Amino acid sequence: MTSVTVAHYGLGPIGLGIVDVALERGHRVLGAVDIDPEKIGKDLGTLLGRAAIGVPVTADASAALAGRPLVVFHTTQSQLARTTPQLLEIVAAGANVISTCEELAFPWRDHAEHAHRIDTAAKARGVTVVGLGVNPGYIMDLLPIVLTAPCRVIRAIRIVRVVDAGRRRLPLQRKVGAGMDRPTFERGVAEGTIGHVGLKESIAMIADSLGWTVDAVTERIDPVAHGATVNGLHQVAVGTSAGQPIITLDLTMAVGVSNPRDSVVIDGEPPINVTVDGGIHGDVATCALAVNAAPIVVAAPPGLTTVNRLAPIHR
Amino acid sequence: MTSVTVAHYGLGPIGLGIVDVALERGHRVLGAVDIDPEKIGKDLGTLLGRAAIGVPVTADASAALAGRPLVVFHTTQSQLARTTPQLLEIVAAGANVISTCEELAFPWRDHAEHAHRIDTAAKARGVTVVGLGVNPGYIMDLLPIVLTAPCRVIRAIRIVRVVDAGRRRLPLQRKVGAGMDRPTFERGVAEGTIGHVGLKESIAMIADSLGWTVDAVTERIDPVAHGATVNGLHQVAVGTSAGQPIITLDLTMAVGVSNPRDSVVIDGEPPINVTVDGGIHGDVATCALAVNAAPIVVAAPPGLTTVNRLAPIHR
Repeated sequence: MTSVTVAHYGLGPIGLGIVDVALERGHRVLGAVDIDPEKIGKDLGTLLGRAAIGVPVTADASAALAGRPLVVFHTTQSQLARTTPQLLEIVAAGANVISTCEELAFPWRDHAEHAHRIDTAAKARGVTVVGLGVNPGYIMDLLPIVLTAPCRVIRAIRIVRVVDAGRRRLPLQRKVGAGMDRPTFERGVAEGTIGHVGLKESIAMIADSLGWTVDAVTERIDPVAHGATVNGLHQVAVGTSAGQPIITLDLTMAVGVSNPRDSVVIDGEPPINVTVDGGIHGDVATCALAVNAAPIVVAAPPGLTTVNRLAPIHR
Repeated sequence: MTSVTVAHYGLGPIGLGIVDVALERGHRVLGAVDIDPEKIGKDLGTLLGRAAIGVPVTADASAALAGRPLVVFHTTQSQLARTTPQLLEIVAAGANVISTCEELAFPWRDHAEHAHRIDTAAKARGVTVVGLGVNPGYIMDLLPIVLTAPCRVIRAIRIVRVVDAGRRRLPLQRKVGAGMDRPTFERGVAEGTIGHVGLKESIAMIADSLGWTVDAVTERIDPVAHGATVNGLHQVAVGTSAGQPIITLDLTMAVGVSNPRDSVVIDGEPPINVTVDGGIHGDVATCALAVNAAPIVVAAPPGLTTVNRLAPIHR
């Protein structure tokens, strides 16, 4: 893809990682938004340990979007209730949006009202909006969907992801409860601060592609612990049809797990049994996916879309 | 996908397998073409050991296409020099085409003249044409392309497919030389009757997606033999850039191989190492892929396309 104009909305570890990949690809950064006082006013290149690029971080999104970037990379929060106003602001500025907001990856099942608002605004403005990342958006939904292509019949799909959180950024280690005691972990689960957002979205996306009706989705989170200290979490979401599990997503994210991997097992004809040895490193992958998606998203028809409806994203 | 009208052009093992899947999905068969005197005049359902469906096989393609099917499944030969007139006939009849013609999977590099003729005719008639199958069309091109999505950098791609030809149809066993003596095998390779068609197309498709320039493609075929008898072939195609191998496709198809599998190894950041345990069974997969592609192909813009440009095919 030739160089395009971009802006970055959200400059946490993933947001900055995306800036790094975008600069590497020669995209021209027109603006950068973050609310962190430590970052506001600093040059975006400097924040990355690169040479200054003449783009100061601002908390004023309208200023950062004023140059009309073709694509905005949005990486602020997981919940659409919080991100929808930001997404609508970017759409109103006339930019295509690639967001890592987990609930945006497939919002039509559990957040249909937000989804309709974003879709309507994007169509009216002639831009495309998509939510993606490695999970949700790839390893537990798009890749399994692509792996169903050779199947004549599918009875059930099971996806297992085992991540060594010790090799991942600190916010992720916190999100999985690493280092906490059990009561603190359980409280975090109850309050929603511990746990991965996106499994329900992945189940909904798979069901959408396969034309399946999922009657119910159950999800539970347990600690992975040795003794009193929690090392991470084991989170399982199951989509059922007529009481039978048809889509099972089994996610372990903990410090020091053995045999990190991704696996997709399709109970079908033919059966498909795929393993990604060592797993796909989530942070690098999410940043690369976001930038790799840019040409596909720019070429897609206007509206809110999802990765299972876009042409295949690739490096 | 709701039921659509289809016709079948070519009723060898793959063609009949596609009919079987299409009937299972409730598609309505309007016509069936084959040149085999043993099949002409027989009912298509009866040929499959099913109840008669009121569709007699005919050698007259124009009669079989007269009912204006929405989709025609085409499975006759590997070479575009032979299939282009058939494909143009189907396009002229106003049908979308899903063909297992190997050279059609990515014809733009080595068969650009045929590709342009088909593309022009398809656009003029408002229909879509695609070539696909499990290989080329999926395991050594589309799947690896999708597996590059999480990569920031890619240096090289290596794909290994090991197929136990003993579990496959007889024409395939003949194509790989199983049971021949070595001189017969070597003569077959020289004459082009032994060998898999499609590795060059897969390399061209991967390069197309990644924006890579492949300067040269080399391909060689060796026998897999114990003593004097050949069990199959080992065929390797390498795409190079500036003298360096960047895409390597390594295919073994032989009777009695151990550890049949597909693997994709991407030398990149992050590295990706994926194994399909047991491999994907080629015949079932090709038939399922063809039928699964129908809704995607019907919805695609007119013209000759390739699977790396279509929305993801899925069950």
